[in-house]
Amino acid sequence: MEMISQNKSFGGWHKQYTHRSDVLNCDMRFAVYLPPQASAETPVPVLYWLSGLTCTDENFMQKAGAQRIAAELGMAIVAPDTSPRGDDVADDPAYDMGKGAGFYLNATQPPWSSHYRMYDYVVEELPALIEATFPVTQQRAIAGHSMGGHGALLIALRNPQRYSSVSAFSPITNPMNCPWGQKAFTAYLGNDRLQWAQYDASGLMAAAEHKLPALVDQGMADNFLQEQLKPEMLEQAAQLSGYPLQLRRHDGYDHSYYFIASFIEEHLRFHAEHLF
Amino acid sequence: MEMISQNKSFGGWHKQYTHRSDVLNCDMRFAVYLPPQASAETPVPVLYWLSGLTCTDENFMQKAGAQRIAAELGMAIVAPDTSPRGDDVADDPAYDMGKGAGFYLNATQPPWSSHYRMYDYVVEELPALIEATFPVTQQRAIAGHSMGGHGALLIALRNPQRYSSVSAFSPITNPMNCPWGQKAFTAYLGNDRLQWAQYDASGLMAAAEHKLPALVDQGMADNFLQEQLKPEMLEQAAQLSGYPLQLRRHDGYDHSYYFIASFIEEHLRFHAEHLF
Repeated sequence: MEMISQNKSFGGWHKQYTHRSDVLNCDMRFAVYLPPQASAETPVPVLYWLSGLTCTDENFMQKAGAQRIAAELGMAIVAPDTSPRGDDVADDPAYDMGKGAGFYLNATQPPWSSHYRMYDYVVEELPALIEATFPVTQQRAIAGHSMGGHGALLIALRNPQRYSSVSAFSPITNPMNCPWGQKAFTAYLGNDRLQWAQYDASGLMAAAEHKLPALVDQGMADNFLQEQLKPEMLEQAAQLSGYPLQLRRHDGYDHSYYFIASFIEEHLRFHAEHLF
Repeated sequence: MEMISQNKSFGGWHKQYTHRSDVLNCDMRFAVYLPPQASAETPVPVLYWLSGLTCTDENFMQKAGAQRIAAELGMAIVAPDTSPRGDDVADDPAYDMGKGAGFYLNATQPPWSSHYRMYDYVVEELPALIEATFPVTQQRAIAGHSMGGHGALLIALRNPQRYSSVSAFSPITNPMNCPWGQKAFTAYLGNDRLQWAQYDASGLMAAAEHKLPALVDQGMADNFLQEQLKPEMLEQAAQLSGYPLQLRRHDGYDHSYYFIASFIEEHLRFHAEHLF
C-alpha cells in the first residue's frame, strides 16, 4: 500500500492510497478521511461511501463537504473507486458499463468476471485492509449515491451484521427493473434473473429479516427519477417487510453533488446515532 | 445573458450564466449562488470570489462548501471565470499564462491587450450586470485564492469605496517580486515596473489611505509559500501603513481546496460582519 497524496482538512487528514487488490486482480486507489480524534488510543468508526457512475474516490471527498461534520463527530470516511482499473481490465465505451460502472457486484460472465468483483472488495477486502492499517474500530456504516446508493443498500441488506446503519442519496432502488440495472446485470451476470435478485435492493428489502436503520434522500428534480431510480419501489418493499426506512423527497433538488452537499450533514449525524 | 445550468443548493440556487462581455470582447461564463432569502423585497449583499490559476467559475462552487453558510447568512456569491475565453482569445501553452491566468489586470501589450481586461470586468462590468439582474444590493465584499487572492486584494485596495471587506486564501501578495507575477506582468504589461505597481497588493497596501477590514489565511505546508506567495511581504506592508490586516498561518495546510473548505465559514462570517 502506498500513500499518493495527503491534505489537511478540518484538523484531520484526507489521504489517497493505492494498493494491490487480490479480489479485483488489479491496483486500486481509495481515499480516507481521518478526523482529528483518530489515534491508536482512540480509534474511530468508519463510514464507507460508494460513489455513482463515472466517479472515482475523489468526487465525494472534493464535493460533498462531509469532512467538517466527520471532524466534529470523530468519524472516518472511506471512499473506494467505482470499478476495477488498469489497462488489462475489460471496459466498454458507454459510461454505464465497465470502468466507473462496477455496480458493486461479483460478475460471473466473461470478459468481466476476471476483475469485476466490487461486492467482495467493498464487503471484505477493503474493510480488512482499512481496519488493519488505520486507527479505526470495526464499527461500520455505509452510504452512497445513485449506483453507489444501490451498492450501499444491497450490501447493508445482505450483511446487516457488518453495519450499524445505511443511507443513500438518489439510489437505483430496483435495478432489475430499470435500464441501467438491466443492462449491467445482463452483461455482468448473464440472463438468469435469480442471479440478479441477489443485487436488487428492493427485492432484498422486501425479504429482509435483520433490519438496520435506513435513510434515503431523493431529489424531485432529478432527471433519472422516474426511469432509473424509482424510490417508490423501495418504499413498497419496506412496507412489505416492515423495514425501518426513512425515505425523504426534496422538491427542486437534482442528481448532483449540490444535492448531496445540502443534506450530507444529516446523513452523518444519522449514522453517528447508531455508530456510537 | 443565458442561464446554462441551475442546481438547488441548501434551499437556494446555484446557477451558471453566459453573457457577452463588452470589456473582454468575448463570451464569458460566471456562477452565482443565490441564498433562499434573496428576493425583490429582500435583496442580499454579494461576495465576489476570484479563483486561482487554471480555474473557472466551477472550482469554488463545487469544492469550497460555502453555500451552507451563505444560505444561513443570506449572502449571494458570484464567481467569475479567471480569464477571457474563446477561440479568438490569445493563449499560451503554460498554465500560468493566457487562458485561466488573467491575473485580474488590464493588459497593455499585444497579443493580450485585445481581450485581457479582467480588472475592468471584475470591478465594473460584472457587478453592474449582477446588480441589474439579481435581487442583490450594492453591498459588496471580495475574496479569492492564490492568483485570485492577489486579485481580491489589489481590487479592494484600489477601490475601497466599492467593498466592505476583503479576504484571501494563499494569495500572491507581491507579484512584482515572484516568478508567477514577473512572468505575467512582463507579458501583459511590458517592462515598465511603474505599470506593474498598480497591480501589486503589497505595494498598494503599504501606501493605502482608505482601509478595509482584511483577512488572509495561509497554509504552512503550501508548496508555493516561499517562492510565490510571500505573506510576510503583505504583513510588512500592513505595518507600514497601519493597515488592519489579520494574517493567520495554519500549520499543515496546503494550497488546495481542502484548506479553503476548512476555513471558508470564518471568511463568510468575517464578511457578514461588515456587509450587514
